[in-house]
Amino acid sequence: MTPTAFSPSFPSVCPTGLPDNDLVLLAHGGGGRLSRRLIESLIVPAFDNELLRMLHDGAVAPFPGGRLAFTTDSYVVRPLEFPGGDIGTLAVNGTINDLACCGATPLYLSCAFILEEGLPLSTFERILHSMKESAAAAGVPIITGDTKVVDQGKGDGLYVNTAGIGLVRPGTAIGPKSIGQGDAVLLSGDIGRHGMAVMAVREGLEFESGLTSDCAPLHRLVGDLLDSGVDVHCLRDLTRGGLAAALVEIAESAGRRLEVNEHHLPVTPSVRGACELLGLDPLHVACEGRLVAFVPEAQAESALAIMRRHECARQATRIGRVGSPGPGQVVLRTTLGTGRLLDLPLTEPLPRIC
Amino acid sequence: MTPTAFSPSFPSVCPTGLPDNDLVLLAHGGGGRLSRRLIESLIVPAFDNELLRMLHDGAVAPFPGGRLAFTTDSYVVRPLEFPGGDIGTLAVNGTINDLACCGATPLYLSCAFILEEGLPLSTFERILHSMKESAAAAGVPIITGDTKVVDQGKGDGLYVNTAGIGLVRPGTAIGPKSIGQGDAVLLSGDIGRHGMAVMAVREGLEFESGLTSDCAPLHRLVGDLLDSGVDVHCLRDLTRGGLAAALVEIAESAGRRLEVNEHHLPVTPSVRGACELLGLDPLHVACEGRLVAFVPEAQAESALAIMRRHECARQATRIGRVGSPGPGQVVLRTTLGTGRLLDLPLTEPLPRIC
Repeated sequence: MTPTAFSPSFPSVCPTGLPDNDLVLLAHGGGGRLSRRLIESLIVPAFDNELLRMLHDGAVAPFPGGRLAFTTDSYVVRPLEFPGGDIGTLAVNGTINDLACCGATPLYLSCAFILEEGLPLSTFERILHSMKESAAAAGVPIITGDTKVVDQGKGDGLYVNTAGIGLVRPGTAIGPKSIGQGDAVLLSGDIGRHGMAVMAVREGLEFESGLTSDCAPLHRLVGDLLDSGVDVHCLRDLTRGGLAAALVEIAESAGRRLEVNEHHLPVTPSVRGACELLGLDPLHVACEGRLVAFVPEAQAESALAIMRRHECARQATRIGRVGSPGPGQVVLRTTLGTGRLLDLPLTEPLPRIC
Repeated sequence: MTPTAFSPSFPSVCPTGLPDNDLVLLAHGGGGRLSRRLIESLIVPAFDNELLRMLHDGAVAPFPGGRLAFTTDSYVVRPLEFPGGDIGTLAVNGTINDLACCGATPLYLSCAFILEEGLPLSTFERILHSMKESAAAAGVPIITGDTKVVDQGKGDGLYVNTAGIGLVRPGTAIGPKSIGQGDAVLLSGDIGRHGMAVMAVREGLEFESGLTSDCAPLHRLVGDLLDSGVDVHCLRDLTRGGLAAALVEIAESAGRRLEVNEHHLPVTPSVRGACELLGLDPLHVACEGRLVAFVPEAQAESALAIMRRHECARQATRIGRVGSPGPGQVVLRTTLGTGRLLDLPLTEPLPRIC
């Protein structure tokens, strides 16, 4: 989708059913429709340039000796620590995954902290430790950083920004524009675990089987696919907005119809149970260690075999295919055999999930 | 200074006279002694690697085809807008200046926003506009970004992170370790304007002559110096902690004594007056468009002539010289002819100045 597909007058005229006001809403940060509109109607036009317009997980830009990938993310997850990870593991792995999904080998990370006055230093130390462990496990060093402190009541303990630089593999052109009719859509594992793990601890809910975040680095999985000669057309890691947001954004950016089989989507019983309890659709719940890969139909089975060699993608499965050009849409074939259009939620079912 | 120069047990034993507690204090973010101690006792050891240990404005790291410079900064200035700039101009120029002070040509910026629910979109739009103008004026595009929203009362309108990538000039080795005995210390202009401009608007003070921030990009000035063949040994832009922090950090990192003449320091009457009123020393007040350059004595005059060709450095002047190796210290020769050791302030005279 191009920025001009949205009304440039969004801030004063909001054709969404939400109150017509000019204030930032939580939903502007949720990865849903309002989020995308803020980015496309205000931010992209302000900084307009060819690289930013790609709206991919990161930018791919020329540098002497090769192309580099560059990405940034701020993390505001609440609470700071949750089963399976914390804001530090999210920050390190999230940025690594964005670089990987540009077809890049992650090389360097930066790390910037906004601490709230009164945060226990022991909490900060634990999070530094898990960033260290995550960076070491992934083999990507944090080489530069920054620390700011804000007054009590002007933050929420700790916000973390990580930016990352990767070296893009020669010959790759990974992005929505590269997908082609008939491409297989592969999903690397079960969905919704990160979001439900955070929600469970946030809401004080206790589920019979422990929910843990799926937070994990995906760069070795991607590297293996590319090394094996799979002609990967597009990659996207699933974060805010879950699988639905990733597929809708790719469909819209590519101007392609995607067809996805609902009964092929892996969801664990505990995630399904928690979602039912909270009235959420697992399709819209954030992951932090999952990706979708678009590959030529003829390479789908070998790509799946490669993915399944990795601990983080044992359950990799084919979930759909790319259809004809036209308005970018995602059609979900339900278990009842009907089809429904998948859309981004307008508002924010899971605020501050990453 | 090496990280081990500080007690590794800082969080529980604080030999500073401040209350012995384990909470983050505003002073941990002020660019003073506590700030440096947090970085050196907790963060650097956690992420320990050769590049991070440089503790320069940014990291210089290998990339196929050349060395890249990588830097990040979060901006939490209060208020968001002030005479001479806003959080957006600070973010763009601050990151450009960090790259320039690594001897790099700035190539790309990222930009990540943490918006507080309830921020007027019109304010955000104004700041986006000034980021766009600053980036265009500097000729450095913003190519990737991120937007998060936090609940009302968990932010302060808007925090901005910018990271930047630059291409380091071949043959340069700019950093504290490169300075040599007898090097001239050059200052590009008058000090303290940014800090006093922010303080004036924050405190509702009105001074007879309008104080405006000196916020400006310095990469063309640095490029001109390097293009002209000046053998620049070290550069540092003056931000948090002002000239004093920059000089003390360089002296400590280099293990060199620096001698600085107080009566050579340019301070405008309005900055001096405002500092007197608020009980501040201009030496410790932040700038956002000034740098110090360490060059061989024989090239000092030609370097000054080159600097003065730039609007941002018309008042460039020599302020001191590099002395013998030993404990890194800065000796300030006062106008009375006496000498005093310059140190970083322990606490935070000007919180959230950038």
